[in-house]
Amino acid sequence: MVPDPASDASDIREVDSGRVAIIGAGHVGSTTAYALMLRALFREIVLIDNDAGLARAEARDVSDANALARPAHVWAGDYPDAARADIVIITAGAATQGAQSRLSIATRSAEIVRQCVTRLMAEGFSGIMIIAANPVDLMTAVAIAASGLEPARVIGTGTLLDSLRLQHALAHRLGVAPNAVHAMVIGEHGDSAVAAFSNVRIGGLPLSRFQPDWSVADEAQIATDVRNGAYRIIEGKGYTSFGVATAIVRICEAVVRNEGAILPASTQLNGESGISGICLSLPCILGASGIVRILEPDLDEAEICALHASAAIVRKALASLTAGDTAPVTDTIRSH
Amino acid sequence: MVPDPASDASDIREVDSGRVAIIGAGHVGSTTAYALMLRALFREIVLIDNDAGLARAEARDVSDANALARPAHVWAGDYPDAARADIVIITAGAATQGAQSRLSIATRSAEIVRQCVTRLMAEGFSGIMIIAANPVDLMTAVAIAASGLEPARVIGTGTLLDSLRLQHALAHRLGVAPNAVHAMVIGEHGDSAVAAFSNVRIGGLPLSRFQPDWSVADEAQIATDVRNGAYRIIEGKGYTSFGVATAIVRICEAVVRNEGAILPASTQLNGESGISGICLSLPCILGASGIVRILEPDLDEAEICALHASAAIVRKALASLTAGDTAPVTDTIRSH
Amino acid sequence: MVPDPASDASDIREVDSGRVAIIGAGHVGSTTAYALMLRALFREIVLIDNDAGLARAEARDVSDANALARPAHVWAGDYPDAARADIVIITAGAATQGAQSRLSIATRSAEIVRQCVTRLMAEGFSGIMIIAANPVDLMTAVAIAASGLEPARVIGTGTLLDSLRLQHALAHRLGVAPNAVHAMVIGEHGDSAVAAFSNVRIGGLPLSRFQPDWSVADEAQIATDVRNGAYRIIEGKGYTSFGVATAIVRICEAVVRNEGAILPASTQLNGESGISGICLSLPCILGASGIVRILEPDLDEAEICALHASAAIVRKALASLTAGDTAPVTDTIRSH
Amino acid sequence: MVPDPASDASDIREVDSGRVAIIGAGHVGSTTAYALMLRALFREIVLIDNDAGLARAEARDVSDANALARPAHVWAGDYPDAARADIVIITAGAATQGAQSRLSIATRSAEIVRQCVTRLMAEGFSGIMIIAANPVDLMTAVAIAASGLEPARVIGTGTLLDSLRLQHALAHRLGVAPNAVHAMVIGEHGDSAVAAFSNVRIGGLPLSRFQPDWSVADEAQIATDVRNGAYRIIEGKGYTSFGVATAIVRICEAVVRNEGAILPASTQLNGESGISGICLSLPCILGASGIVRILEPDLDEAEICALHASAAIVRKALASLTAGDTAPVTDTIRSH
Repeated sequence: MVPDPASDASDIREVDSGRVAIIGAGHVGSTTAYALMLRALFREIVLIDNDAGLARAEARDVSDANALARPAHVWAGDYPDAARADIVIITAGAATQGAQSRLSIATRSAEIVRQCVTRLMAEGFSGIMIIAANPVDLMTAVAIAASGLEPARVIGTGTLLDSLRLQHALAHRLGVAPNAVHAMVIGEHGDSAVAAFSNVRIGGLPLSRFQPDWSVADEAQIATDVRNGAYRIIEGKGYTSFGVATAIVRICEAVVRNEGAILPASTQLNGESGISGICLSLPCILGASGIVRILEPDLDEAEICALHASAAIVRKALASLTAGDTAPVTDTIRSH
Repeated sequence: MVPDPASDASDIREVDSGRVAIIGAGHVGSTTAYALMLRALFREIVLIDNDAGLARAEARDVSDANALARPAHVWAGDYPDAARADIVIITAGAATQGAQSRLSIATRSAEIVRQCVTRLMAEGFSGIMIIAANPVDLMTAVAIAASGLEPARVIGTGTLLDSLRLQHALAHRLGVAPNAVHAMVIGEHGDSAVAAFSNVRIGGLPLSRFQPDWSVADEAQIATDVRNGAYRIIEGKGYTSFGVATAIVRICEAVVRNEGAILPASTQLNGESGISGICLSLPCILGASGIVRILEPDLDEAEICALHASAAIVRKALASLTAGDTAPVTDTIRSH
Repeated sequence: MVPDPASDASDIREVDSGRVAIIGAGHVGSTTAYALMLRALFREIVLIDNDAGLARAEARDVSDANALARPAHVWAGDYPDAARADIVIITAGAATQGAQSRLSIATRSAEIVRQCVTRLMAEGFSGIMIIAANPVDLMTAVAIAASGLEPARVIGTGTLLDSLRLQHALAHRLGVAPNAVHAMVIGEHGDSAVAAFSNVRIGGLPLSRFQPDWSVADEAQIATDVRNGAYRIIEGKGYTSFGVATAIVRICEAVVRNEGAILPASTQLNGESGISGICLSLPCILGASGIVRILEPDLDEAEICALHASAAIVRKALASLTAGDTAPVTDTIRSH
Repeated sequence: MVPDPASDASDIREVDSGRVAIIGAGHVGSTTAYALMLRALFREIVLIDNDAGLARAEARDVSDANALARPAHVWAGDYPDAARADIVIITAGAATQGAQSRLSIATRSAEIVRQCVTRLMAEGFSGIMIIAANPVDLMTAVAIAASGLEPARVIGTGTLLDSLRLQHALAHRLGVAPNAVHAMVIGEHGDSAVAAFSNVRIGGLPLSRFQPDWSVADEAQIATDVRNGAYRIIEGKGYTSFGVATAIVRICEAVVRNEGAILPASTQLNGESGISGICLSLPCILGASGIVRILEPDLDEAEICALHASAAIVRKALASLTAGDTAPVTDTIRSH
C-alpha cells in the first residue's frame, strides 16, 4: 500500500494524496496519530521524531489497533516522507522543567520548530501546516517566518482547546449537551485568553435569557476554571494529550474536507479586530487552502480591552523571542 | 445528566433495552430504519405496517446492509413488540392526493395516528414517542391525547427539518459549513413557519456582521426557499425521505444518550412564548425523559407576530379537527 | 465550496479530488448518495439523471440531512461534472415490467449504460467506474467495451450483495454477528450464483465444526433463501435499495482509501478459475487503481461445476446481447 | 439475539443503563476512556484510581475532547459508582521494574486485582467484568474467584491484541487490508501464545493458495514478530496503550450491543480443546451475558501441542500464584 515515490503528479489518481505527517511523537503527537487513525481522515499517517525508536513504537502501537478500524498505513518516517503529505502537524517543542522561565522554553521551542520547518521546506513541502507546539501563538509566527509559506497555510491550534473547555464547562454547569453551547475563547492560548461571554449562546439563547439568575460571578468562576484547565490536568497526569489531539483532528478534518468550518485558530493578524503583526486566535473559516477568512467577533468593551491586552502580551513575548532576549518574562505563554 | 442515585439498579441488565419501533414502513419509516441501523443507536429495530409484506421487505432490505455495519437485529413485528421499545416512531399517516383538502388529510391522519397510539398503549407502552406523521403539530396533539402519556414524552419532529434546511441554505449562500451556522425555524411545520433570522449566528457572528451587505431581501429569499423546500422535493421525487429520516435519528440519539441537546421540536405549549393549548415547535432540551425543558427564544417584534400568527393557524386547524369539521381550510398544515 | 474548473491538475492540493458522481437518481442512486453522504467518503456528491428535476429533488433531500452529518456538497450536475470525479457509479438501466423478457431488459439496459459511458468518456473521464446497473455482469462488460478503460478500473457490484445476504442468513441462523461469518457468493449476480459453502467460516471454524448437525439440507435452504432475497424484497416494496446502496458504498471506500480489501466483484476474467471472456464475480483485492488482483477460491467439485454453469449462462446472454438477438432467453440475469 | 419476552420491562426507562467504569487510570485505562468516548458506546464513563488526582486529570482531559464528539459524561468516581455500571474494566495491576521476576509481578497484580474486585462486589456489582491487568490469564482466574460471578461474566482481554497484531502483520506482508485477513492467536497472552496459521484465511483463501510460495519460514518470522510486538513497543515508549485500549473497546461493543461477535478472549475452560481448570484464550461468542459460548478451533497437530504447552505454563504459574510461591519462574506471563 506504500505509494510509489516515482509516481507522476500529473494524473491525480496515481498521486499519494491522503497523507498526514506528525512531527514529534510524544504524548500529543502519538495521541493525535491514534485519533486520526480512528477518525479515518487519511490513508497514511507518518510519525517523525528525533527518537526514531519512539516514533516506531508509537506507530506500531497505533497500527496494532488498525485491524479494528478503517484501514490506514501508520508508519515511522522522515522529512522526505512528510514533504509529500497534504498536512504536516508540528507537535515537537520544549517542555517546562521545574523553575524554567517561560521565555527560555519559548526560545528552545522556537529553535526546534524552526529546525523542523526548515528541514520540511528543504524537502519541498507545499501543503498545510498545523502548529501545536507551545507557546503556540509564538510558534505559529516562527513557522510562518521559517517556512515562507503563505500565512493562511499555517494554522496554530490556538484557543480551540480553550473553547472546547469553555463549551464543556458551560454545558456541565447548565445541564445541556456541549453541542448545544456556542462559546469561543479568543486571544492568546495562555493566561490572557479571553472567554467571549457576550457571544455565548445556549441553543441560540444568550446566557441571561437561558438562565435568568446568571451573573458576572458565574462567568468569572467558569473563566477561571477554563484558564486553569491545563494546569489541573498537568498537575494530575504530567501533561495534556486527549483534548489537544482531538482539537488537531478537528482542524485536519476541516481542511481535508474543505469544510468551511468556523473554528478559533491562531493565525497572523493584519488589522483584524485592530491587531497586527502577531499570531493570535480569532474565529476563522477553514478550508482546503487553510485559513480562508478571519472573522471579527462582536465583543463588548471589556472583551475588546482584554483582547488587546492579550495581544500586547504576545507582541512583547514575540519581540523578546526575536531579539534573542533571555531575561525571564513574567507573563503567561503556556502549554495546552 | 448524572443519573439519579436513588433509582434501582438491581435488574438493569436483565431488561431488554436498546429497541426502537417504527410504525409505518413507507419511505420515511424505512429510510429511518436504514439510517438508525447505520448510526448504530439501537440493538433492535422493529418495523410495523398494516401491509405486513411491505414491513418484511423493508426490514429485509435494511438487514441486507447490516453485514457492513455494526450488528443490529432489524425485523418486521407487531404492536406487542413495539410496546417493549424504548422509543416508538410514528410515521404512519395520510398523504395528499390531487385536490384533497388539507383538513381532510388531517382528519384521516388523525384517525390513523389515534389508532396506532391506542393499539400501542393497549400493549402497555411507557417509553418515548416521536411523531413524524403530518400535519405534525396536530398529530403530536392527537398522540398526546390518545396516549395519555405525559406530554413531555411525546416529541413531534416539528420544525427540526425546516431548521436543517435553513442552516443548509445559509451555509450554501455564505460559503461556510452547515455546522458553522446556528439557525432555527420555529412555529408550525408548515407555510407559517418562522425563520428566526434575528437569532442566526455564523460562527457566532450575527448575519449583518458576517456579511455587511446582508439585507432583508436576502432573508426573504432564503425564507421562501426553505418554505418551498418540501414542495420542490415532492415535485421532483413525489415524497421526502432522507432529510426527515435524518432528523428523526437526531431526536432518537438525543433521547437514547440522554444528551441534553437543544433542538426545535413540536411539543405541547403551556404559556411558553405566550402560547398555550396547542403543539408547536420551540427550541427544546431533549434527554432520556423526552422534552426536558422548552426554551423561549429572544425574538424581534416581527418574529413574535409571525409566531403568534402561526399558532393561530394551528389552533384553528386543531379546533376544526377536534370538532370533526370537514369543511376545507385554506391555511397551511403540510407534509415534510 | 464548488471547485474552480480552471484549476491546474499539476499541483495536487489545488485539484478537486474527493468527488463522486452517480448516474441515475432512482432508488438505488439516491440511496447511494444518502449513504455516501452519511459515510463522509467524499467532499462532493454529484447526481445525474435524464430527469433533471428528479436529480435536483434527490440532491436537495440528501442535502437537507447534511447539517446533521459531516459537511459535503451534494448537487445535481451533468456529464462534464462527472468527468472530473474520482469515481463514477452507474445505476441507470432498464427495469423489468410485467412479462418482459430478461434479454429485452438487458438490451435496453445496455443501450442506456453504453450511452452514459460514451458521454462520460467524451468528457475525458479517467477515474474508476462502478457498475450497479442490471444485469450487472453483462453491463460491466458493456461498460468496459464502451469506455476503453483498463478493465481493472471498471468494477461491477456483482455478488457482493448476495454475499452480504449469505452472511446475514448464516448469522441469523447460527445466532452470531454477521461480522463473525466469512461467506462469499461468486459467479453470476442472478439465479445461477454460487454460495461457496465449502469456504464458509464461523469465527474461523468450518460450518460442520461450529454446528455438528449442520447438513446439506441446511445449505440448500439457506442458498434458496439468499437466491430469493431480491425477489421477496421486490415483491414487498417494488424494488431494492438499502442493501445495494450499502454495497456500493463499501466498494467506494475500498477504492478511495486504497484499502486492499477483498470483496467479491464482477470483473473481466482472463482464465481465473478457468473462465475467460466474460465478467463474473470472484473475490478481488480492491485498491486505488480498482481491481488489483482477482483471487481464485479453493472450491469443492460441485461448486466448480456450478461456477462454470453460471459462467456459461452469462456467456450465452452476453453473446445474445452482442448479436443484438431479441429472442427471449429463459435463463436468469436479474435485478438486485 | 432476540430478548427474552419474559423479562420485566416495567421499569426499564428509569434505570441508569449506559455506564462503564474503568478501574486504573494509567495509560491503558485513560486511553480506553478516550477511545470509548470517541466510540460513543456509553452515556457515562467513570474513571477510578487510587491516585484520585490522576483519575480526575484523565477524566478532565478526555472531557475536554467531548465537545467534538457525541455527548458523554466522563468523570472520576469511586467503587459505589462502578457498582452500578453495566461493564467494569480492570486495568489496575503491577508493572515490571528492572529485574523483577514475573511471578512477583503476578503476585502483586493478583493482590491489586483481588482488592479491586472485592471492593466492587461489596458494593453489589452484578454486571460484566473485563480484565486487562497482566498477566491476564492469571488475573482473569483471580477475578472469577474473588468475585464469585458466573465465569461467563468475566472476560479477559487475552490474545485479542495478539490476534490484531497477527492480522496486521499478515496484511502488511501480503499487501491487503487487515479486515481481509482472518487470523487468530490462542492460548496464553504471553510468549507461549499460539498463532493458528492453519486457520488463517486471506479473503477466504488459505495462505498457501493466496501466496503459493508461502513457507513455514514465513510463518515463523511473522509469529516471532507478533510475539515481540509488545516488547518492541515497550522498548520504544515504555508501555503499550493504543492497541490494548482498542481491543477493550471492541469487547465492550460486543457486550453492550449483544452482538454475538466471535473474538479470542481469556475465559475459564472446562474441557474445551482438552483444557480445564485455568483461564486461557480460545475464540468465544460474546454477547450481553458475557461469554456465550467457547469455540474449539480445528487445529493441526503442532498447534494442538503448542496450545497444551501454553496451558501447562499457565497452569504452573497459577499453581505458584495460588500457593503463594515467591520463587522466580522462568516462563512467560507478560504485559500487553
